Amino acid sequence: MVKVGIVGATGYTGAELVRILSAHPGVELSVLTSESYGGLAYSKVYPALARKVEAKCQPLDPDKVAEAAEVIFTALPHSKSMECVPRFLQLGKKVLDMSADFRLRDRNVYEQWYAPHSASHLLESSAYGLPELHREKIRRARLVAVPGCYPTSAILGLAPLVRAGLLGPEPIIVNSASGVTGAGRSLDLGSLFCEVNEGMKAYKVAQHRHTPEMEQEISGLAGREVRVIFVPHLLPISRGILTTIYIGPKEAVGEEDILAAYENFYKAEPFVRVLPKGVFPNVRDVRGSNLCDVGLRVDPRTGKLIVVVAIDNLVKGASGQAVQCMNLMMGFPEGEGLDAPPLFI
Amino acid sequence: MVKVGIVGATGYTGAELVRILSAHPGVELSVLTSESYGGLAYSKVYPALARKVEAKCQPLDPDKVAEAAEVIFTALPHSKSMECVPRFLQLGKKVLDMSADFRLRDRNVYEQWYAPHSASHLLESSAYGLPELHREKIRRARLVAVPGCYPTSAILGLAPLVRAGLLGPEPIIVNSASGVTGAGRSLDLGSLFCEVNEGMKAYKVAQHRHTPEMEQEISGLAGREVRVIFVPHLLPISRGILTTIYIGPKEAVGEEDILAAYENFYKAEPFVRVLPKGVFPNVRDVRGSNLCDVGLRVDPRTGKLIVVVAIDNLVKGASGQAVQCMNLMMGFPEGEGLDAPPLFI
Amino acid sequence: MVKVGIVGATGYTGAELVRILSAHPGVELSVLTSESYGGLAYSKVYPALARKVEAKCQPLDPDKVAEAAEVIFTALPHSKSMECVPRFLQLGKKVLDMSADFRLRDRNVYEQWYAPHSASHLLESSAYGLPELHREKIRRARLVAVPGCYPTSAILGLAPLVRAGLLGPEPIIVNSASGVTGAGRSLDLGSLFCEVNEGMKAYKVAQHRHTPEMEQEISGLAGREVRVIFVPHLLPISRGILTTIYIGPKEAVGEEDILAAYENFYKAEPFVRVLPKGVFPNVRDVRGSNLCDVGLRVDPRTGKLIVVVAIDNLVKGASGQAVQCMNLMMGFPEGEGLDAPPLFI
Amino acid sequence: MVKVGIVGATGYTGAELVRILSAHPGVELSVLTSESYGGLAYSKVYPALARKVEAKCQPLDPDKVAEAAEVIFTALPHSKSMECVPRFLQLGKKVLDMSADFRLRDRNVYEQWYAPHSASHLLESSAYGLPELHREKIRRARLVAVPGCYPTSAILGLAPLVRAGLLGPEPIIVNSASGVTGAGRSLDLGSLFCEVNEGMKAYKVAQHRHTPEMEQEISGLAGREVRVIFVPHLLPISRGILTTIYIGPKEAVGEEDILAAYENFYKAEPFVRVLPKGVFPNVRDVRGSNLCDVGLRVDPRTGKLIVVVAIDNLVKGASGQAVQCMNLMMGFPEGEGLDAPPLFI
Repeated sequence: MVKVGIVGATGYTGAELVRILSAHPGVELSVLTSESYGGLAYSKVYPALARKVEAKCQPLDPDKVAEAAEVIFTALPHSKSMECVPRFLQLGKKVLDMSADFRLRDRNVYEQWYAPHSASHLLESSAYGLPELHREKIRRARLVAVPGCYPTSAILGLAPLVRAGLLGPEPIIVNSASGVTGAGRSLDLGSLFCEVNEGMKAYKVAQHRHTPEMEQEISGLAGREVRVIFVPHLLPISRGILTTIYIGPKEAVGEEDILAAYENFYKAEPFVRVLPKGVFPNVRDVRGSNLCDVGLRVDPRTGKLIVVVAIDNLVKGASGQAVQCMNLMMGFPEGEGLDAPPLFI
Repeated sequence: MVKVGIVGATGYTGAELVRILSAHPGVELSVLTSESYGGLAYSKVYPALARKVEAKCQPLDPDKVAEAAEVIFTALPHSKSMECVPRFLQLGKKVLDMSADFRLRDRNVYEQWYAPHSASHLLESSAYGLPELHREKIRRARLVAVPGCYPTSAILGLAPLVRAGLLGPEPIIVNSASGVTGAGRSLDLGSLFCEVNEGMKAYKVAQHRHTPEMEQEISGLAGREVRVIFVPHLLPISRGILTTIYIGPKEAVGEEDILAAYENFYKAEPFVRVLPKGVFPNVRDVRGSNLCDVGLRVDPRTGKLIVVVAIDNLVKGASGQAVQCMNLMMGFPEGEGLDAPPLFI
Repeated sequence: MVKVGIVGATGYTGAELVRILSAHPGVELSVLTSESYGGLAYSKVYPALARKVEAKCQPLDPDKVAEAAEVIFTALPHSKSMECVPRFLQLGKKVLDMSADFRLRDRNVYEQWYAPHSASHLLESSAYGLPELHREKIRRARLVAVPGCYPTSAILGLAPLVRAGLLGPEPIIVNSASGVTGAGRSLDLGSLFCEVNEGMKAYKVAQHRHTPEMEQEISGLAGREVRVIFVPHLLPISRGILTTIYIGPKEAVGEEDILAAYENFYKAEPFVRVLPKGVFPNVRDVRGSNLCDVGLRVDPRTGKLIVVVAIDNLVKGASGQAVQCMNLMMGFPEGEGLDAPPLFI
Repeated sequence: MVKVGIVGATGYTGAELVRILSAHPGVELSVLTSESYGGLAYSKVYPALARKVEAKCQPLDPDKVAEAAEVIFTALPHSKSMECVPRFLQLGKKVLDMSADFRLRDRNVYEQWYAPHSASHLLESSAYGLPELHREKIRRARLVAVPGCYPTSAILGLAPLVRAGLLGPEPIIVNSASGVTGAGRSLDLGSLFCEVNEGMKAYKVAQHRHTPEMEQEISGLAGREVRVIFVPHLLPISRGILTTIYIGPKEAVGEEDILAAYENFYKAEPFVRVLPKGVFPNVRDVRGSNLCDVGLRVDPRTGKLIVVVAIDNLVKGASGQAVQCMNLMMGFPEGEGLDAPPLFI
């Protein structure tokens, strides 16, 4: 049994890690830290896990965490991760970081969108934890930067097209809508039930920090700099991201050809399902699972390609993907602990 | 008191007409027809309206309706409206049709997207019931084609830009999400609570029938043929449409200038609110009202303009707009019966 | 125009007062106070009310409020109201208090369930603001204690039976479920969307502070001390209370007789609708309105009476009822500003 | 691998069986029947299960089903089950019936609440599939009648008290609220999203068919005839039942004693969790799992006992419980396939 620690275990991303890993046959949850609930039994914070998780929450002491765990998931806000991740690595631990701190290769880009970086020497060697694109690097990595939820959906929706060299010169439009767990468990007025329920809004229009992450990966695939216009929306649901992407292809392309390219690109992937022609995904159909569903259409009236992607933001968009990466790093079967069917109803 | 009839009064659009008109000081609901509930008291179908609405549902007999009413709202599916609207006009009645039957000027376009047209001689004289663009024609019209819900949001979000001559040559991308009342009250599996709840999906991707309606009106404003790529989504809420529009302006434009153009265009409009810089609408803030909220941003990284529009699909997107048109046709103050604040919480 | 002040105008109860009063033809909102948003335009806090409400939020200065307003609504937490209400009365103002501070006649009961009372000399003269029971006292009152949301539903569901002398000796069971607005707009973890959504729970089981309020009014009607077992539940909706009451009648009673007694009791009431035999209320059917729907059944297998009541907790359960009381106090028609039909879809 | 057939596999109960059994290591889904979707791949009906379930839906031919399967789950409406269950038994199959047809021991009671019974000779030998009460009988049974969702919650909430002889003479009040999956996947107007959303209502007040099922099991435990007053409510959520039970104990009882009795009764049960003093369940905390959470309180003011129970109506209230029974019948570990933690966020 691999001993696993989770730093920041009581936020939604942390809780989802606990939920998934509590049923993973190869790991033991040996240490869970929480700033807010130190000293409290984890199942007092989340009564749903009574009998499933016996651990107590502990205050964060990096050396104690490292002592108790071989693999460490850090589910902290950005800027906080970079404070303890270097120490974990120094102590020989493998780290999967859920924050943005190690996702961007270019320190300048990070600092422009986020904050000053105090551990930028790690950017080079960290792996971007999207197995569909970086499986081998993840396997060998000691630090994996688990991708953002929105970028996961956008990059998976674009990769086959871009890899096939079919992306045209125009900026890509990424229109996403996310459930409220994406905002985390913090006490924001905007996350209150009565502020979200029966509502729908755009936010951080063309200003969201996940933009450079999408651009980094798409540009990498394209071999040139690609611009993304990204507009996220808030949905009155708990889980799920639906991303609708509008692309101008380089040349006229047929829907069947594109669909075949997507199917081919993902044919060996355990978690990406390319839907049949004319079928589009629903976030319900991936809920609680690590699946990513992709549907597409070429608009014959304009020649534009429209790709629609659904993931569960807490699973493939965060904690499930992190576990998938951990499985690769530790030599488990890639889908270990991630094979339960979605809770679709 | 103007005597008003509603044909198809028990669908959601019809019920919303009843709700609004039951509180309108200048009208009397003299006849309500229903295919499904003929003979039943209206308040048995919608107990919420007990004491507010005394009328009984009647089976549709056009001549009897015309006898009882001076103004007639037809809330029927497309192809059904064209069966009775000509008779109402022949009998000298004013008609507000909620279906698509009289919205498209070009019979060929109608027949390509919908079905054969049996009353196309009326297309020329019918007014497209968007007061912000066609107020004078509506005032004089005997037949008003009340706009579709999605087109209302898209056209209001685009009109100031297009009228200012700033629209570039690329197709416009209209990404919309609608509450479930948009699907009407019919017994479709896809409208069951457990099929919609906690879900989000795209549907009729780049194939929705509201596309030509948007194109007709935008092209009219632009003075040339404009293409729209329209992707609707289904939201797990009852009411509301949020439309996010992506536009390539003809030339580099400043956000302040564009915002000023929008404010100027709508400054005298009673129901359109242009939001301050940096603020974007939420469907909650217009719920139950005839308001349309518009926010916008120019993305400095790509030069694209993003406009976000919120309406209540049942009010400004259907029945409220119909009443606004009726007020114009009958000489009532334009906002009569439509002035209640939104039920925003 | 009567000048009206609202103290605590940015909580949900305050906002609902603003929504209702902004459409009331006889009043002017002359002063709105807010602890959190002092100095901000009210429509910045609630953009839905842009163009409808021009006022700015002000910090609470009782003398300034009294200077600007003739009637004052206090929408403050309990214990806070008693700090300013005496001053308003001293300055000759009429006050409608939304807190629990002046609802309980017996100071000891108040202090047992709430906190020490610093203005208990006002308890005697304050009117319990349930017009169906205390209309005349409200008309003459200078201080009205607006009832709690749950008690409103329970008392209206019980009054006709108790007044008819049919209540048996057993404690009454009041099982209620409320939408989340009942918890107010404070930043509690338990009010976050992702903590409430798709959930249902009981809370404060047989310990909720609204219990003595129900007992006071029911006992008053019964002419003896009556015990209530009250269990509230939290519903994942924004507005509405459904209360299901289980009663052992004193003697065997027929359903028709009981129904007739209820109909007779409420026949002149503008806001209480007794539903036909076999029909039970839904909170949707009163949403956004001051209505109270009541349905009942006598269980022939056990002889127990079951009464089900629906109100909108923010309207008949709080702000609408307060306006109804103000109408009585100021000589307006009782339903002024409260006649809009429910937003039932 | 045990070959399993599901008759009526495309309703919600059937789909939940498929979801659970597709991840059960000891079984193979060898035949799935569907009246509506015969001939269609199961994953076309439920795209969420693409790649997880390969089977096609077949029309119901009992002999073919029996040929292909060793164990058969019948997820049909009442009266339909009794048409094919006798044949399956005759052919030597083990049957788990999800309908009401074999739950009531007394044919007269069945016929009074449901319809004429054509296979009442099986009532005697069928086991009532609540393992917490009838584990040994289930193990040996060839026909298990899987309990109704509401009765499961009520009986589990009452059993320890009744078995301890503490139930008083008054009727028991069972107040339940269920998610909409409880109504099945049929096209009822009342199950449409826009009819349920933001609503809450009671239905079949003191007339629901699950009443005699509760009475049968509680009476059996009590050793005398017990009356239940049962009022179900419809909640705007997909999954979950919360049941609040009001009981008059035979004698004055202490909360700690009662709690200890409950803990003792359920201490070896894998799926029932008795919550600590002062803690009450939330349906969210059991969602997607076979768990049943129970919290209770003795009201010191009246001496009444209040028990609150949460289950997932589709799992412990239907398909999970059926799988638990199948595990007992087939010699699998009782929790096989049922151990995943709840999807609590």
